[in-house]
Amino acid sequence: MPQPDQSLELSPAEFEEMGHQVLRCLSVFLKSLPQQPAADLEGADERAEEFREDLPEAGTPLDSLLEAFFGRAVPKAYNCASPGYLAYVPGGGLPHAALADLMSDITNRYVNVWTAAPAMAQIESSVIGWFCDIVGYPQGAGGYLASGGSMANFSALAAARSDRLPENFLQGTLYASDQVHHCVHKAARMAGFPADNLRVVPSLPDFRIDTRALQRMIEEDAALGRTPFLVVGSAGTTNTGAVDDLQELARICRQHSLWLHVDAAYGGFFMLTERGRRRMKGLALADSIALDPHKGLFLPYGTGCLLARDPQALRKAHSERASYMPPMRDDLSQVDFCDVSPELSRGFRGLRVWLPLKMHGIGPFRRNLQEKLDLAEMAAQELATMKEIEVVAPPQLSLLAFRLKPHHLEDPQQLNQLNRQFLECINSQSRLVFLTGTTVGRRFLIRICVLCFRTHRETLDIALDDIRKALREVRSRILQS
Amino acid sequence: MPQPDQSLELSPAEFEEMGHQVLRCLSVFLKSLPQQPAADLEGADERAEEFREDLPEAGTPLDSLLEAFFGRAVPKAYNCASPGYLAYVPGGGLPHAALADLMSDITNRYVNVWTAAPAMAQIESSVIGWFCDIVGYPQGAGGYLASGGSMANFSALAAARSDRLPENFLQGTLYASDQVHHCVHKAARMAGFPADNLRVVPSLPDFRIDTRALQRMIEEDAALGRTPFLVVGSAGTTNTGAVDDLQELARICRQHSLWLHVDAAYGGFFMLTERGRRRMKGLALADSIALDPHKGLFLPYGTGCLLARDPQALRKAHSERASYMPPMRDDLSQVDFCDVSPELSRGFRGLRVWLPLKMHGIGPFRRNLQEKLDLAEMAAQELATMKEIEVVAPPQLSLLAFRLKPHHLEDPQQLNQLNRQFLECINSQSRLVFLTGTTVGRRFLIRICVLCFRTHRETLDIALDDIRKALREVRSRILQS
Repeated sequence: MPQPDQSLELSPAEFEEMGHQVLRCLSVFLKSLPQQPAADLEGADERAEEFREDLPEAGTPLDSLLEAFFGRAVPKAYNCASPGYLAYVPGGGLPHAALADLMSDITNRYVNVWTAAPAMAQIESSVIGWFCDIVGYPQGAGGYLASGGSMANFSALAAARSDRLPENFLQGTLYASDQVHHCVHKAARMAGFPADNLRVVPSLPDFRIDTRALQRMIEEDAALGRTPFLVVGSAGTTNTGAVDDLQELARICRQHSLWLHVDAAYGGFFMLTERGRRRMKGLALADSIALDPHKGLFLPYGTGCLLARDPQALRKAHSERASYMPPMRDDLSQVDFCDVSPELSRGFRGLRVWLPLKMHGIGPFRRNLQEKLDLAEMAAQELATMKEIEVVAPPQLSLLAFRLKPHHLEDPQQLNQLNRQFLECINSQSRLVFLTGTTVGRRFLIRICVLCFRTHRETLDIALDDIRKALREVRSRILQS
Repeated sequence: MPQPDQSLELSPAEFEEMGHQVLRCLSVFLKSLPQQPAADLEGADERAEEFREDLPEAGTPLDSLLEAFFGRAVPKAYNCASPGYLAYVPGGGLPHAALADLMSDITNRYVNVWTAAPAMAQIESSVIGWFCDIVGYPQGAGGYLASGGSMANFSALAAARSDRLPENFLQGTLYASDQVHHCVHKAARMAGFPADNLRVVPSLPDFRIDTRALQRMIEEDAALGRTPFLVVGSAGTTNTGAVDDLQELARICRQHSLWLHVDAAYGGFFMLTERGRRRMKGLALADSIALDPHKGLFLPYGTGCLLARDPQALRKAHSERASYMPPMRDDLSQVDFCDVSPELSRGFRGLRVWLPLKMHGIGPFRRNLQEKLDLAEMAAQELATMKEIEVVAPPQLSLLAFRLKPHHLEDPQQLNQLNRQFLECINSQSRLVFLTGTTVGRRFLIRICVLCFRTHRETLDIALDDIRKALREVRSRILQS
């Protein structure tokens, strides 16, 4: 006779109590966030070792687990939620979205087929519709929410391939600048393209794609019997925030009948601002666009998005039916997301976007993004006044890159070495801001990316102050040596 | 001058208050769960329409949003969290995991590169290690957590392709039974294989792959100059829960030097039970295994898993470096998950597995799975006693399929029509259980899949009762006509 085990079933009261306990810990975390270091890896590997353990036979009280997690694991990491996290591409982790995930998880609806949860699917569809509006797509455009930008870029590539190339697609060539995000190279490999089929187009001194070189490369490939089919433009590169000339890319793609995909994972939501729309003019001409709400809409990690002017192209690449599945729709106004995307079972990503946007309206998001643009602009201006600081990439959006370039120092390796020390020195000042670097061409650059909703003027002031102090320190070290 | 907008920044107190409000709603939801219909789509499309709306300029109070979500959206759906959801492949949505997601989201650490959050990466690594133990993998095996089974199967396929085939891989052929999950077909297309390259191997009357036919097909393809490289076995098909003969598949793959991947998304965690280990003997011989913790570990949707005996093969397929990235490790004991998987930025999936397993130990999971096996067995025995009920697929694990087969009725179409009505009639009885059907070969079958942690004996009794009542109704209708 089956023996019931009910120990995993929290009663509503037990659940609420456990919830309160977790909320208290999170509230303490949020309270101390502005004072927390923006990155703290001291002894982090040793802490990690404490979490290396065998499959537990016995249970551990929640108290100790919360204590271990918040006390010993959380602090020793990049603090991606902190206002001073100006590294990589920040997001932030909107608390509203976190509570929305809690709601999604407990109710556990299946949204990837319309019939299984029509109102939830519609909530997610509405979000997709809003994103289409934001990028300027016409009626009829569509898409889906992915786990992040990598998967969105991958399925754009799979869609373009299935739309434009024959089954034997190995003659197909695709084009992106040398500044494109590496997930595009990864996507091409996953989709089965030999590495060489992705043509790396040089970029101009402002890090935007060299469209003349692109045009030439396409024509050369076509002349050699290859089949150019896709150009991937960037609306905000990760290196320096460069935005390709999207209008010109669209013109070239139209001329050669190529699919234009734009990776706007970092930059896309700046379309909410006037400056962003000017920078990304032509974005709506793209056949597909990757966005990352966990960047430009400040969500916690876990939500990317792929939009397509013609969602039928996504369906053509991804639709696959089976008799054990719920009944599917053929009407894209009641879309089965599994039909236009790679995943079948997956979480309900729409609610974490919907709840904050519904609670606040789009206004605060627009104003926050505007503020981030202004802050980056201001930081660049301040940096330009500092002696021997070269602003190598002024902000095209909210990301800029600079380096220390003493007049007497020309050797590239020594310069890079110096700037690596400079970066380390900046990050060791207040510890309240955290910057990262990158190597572009042969130059090591220090980046500032302003994108977290918690980042305001005072944080940038701390950052600039840390930079000034580090500059003095590094200079005096140079003088001494 | 940058104008700060702080309206998205909940103070710790505001966050806690909002959290309490959400918890109260969820507690009410959980309280009523046993009485909720297991599926309710009446008027669902109309309800969905209410959520079709433009990008909101103004905000809406949280109260109304919670009221709309819980009152109008949640009830009109498949109730995948309910004990009576015996449809498709249930999961359940463990509340502990939901709270873990809340913790992940608010702290918003980036776990996909070790350096960015070593203890979190280790928490996820520990989970992967536990899964390796559960399936019986040796030391040195590894893997990562995916968004679900589809992505896990896809990246297994991409790894096998890059490990076993040349850049021009279009001569590569892969093999799976006619019962394999359709996401394997989808994965093959996404990876660039022409549809015909996936050879569909017939299944035996018990729905397990016909290994002799497989052997023959491999040899024929090789003789024709094709390159057989991959066999995908199933450890629990979605149609009828069939488990392929994994030992024999492993033998064939060894003989022909093929990669063996096993889709154990539904069945894998039954390796925690003695019966499951017997059924899935040979699983640990597979080169890679897809698991779905959001099925067999009862998590909310959103967590799949890919394991590989040799994680270097995953790295070979997925590793891609960039200079703006954090420093990466070359030591797989401190793994950068982005290096062995398709995604870069994504949520911290490890905590939602770790927290419930740490709180309870593995015991309750094992006992729950054992109970589900027993319940399916019991249901099959009961069904076998019902007049003119044919148990077409007795449970190999916790899934079974049956149909009504009146002695006088032989016409396949009429039989299928009758069973569709029968299914509808079952689902219209108590409304507390929900079953779904599938078509296998030419037969429409009704399925019972027992997997939710909330499903116990009393639910199965209701299900059997509904079936008996529906049987009487359908019979009397037949007699009248």
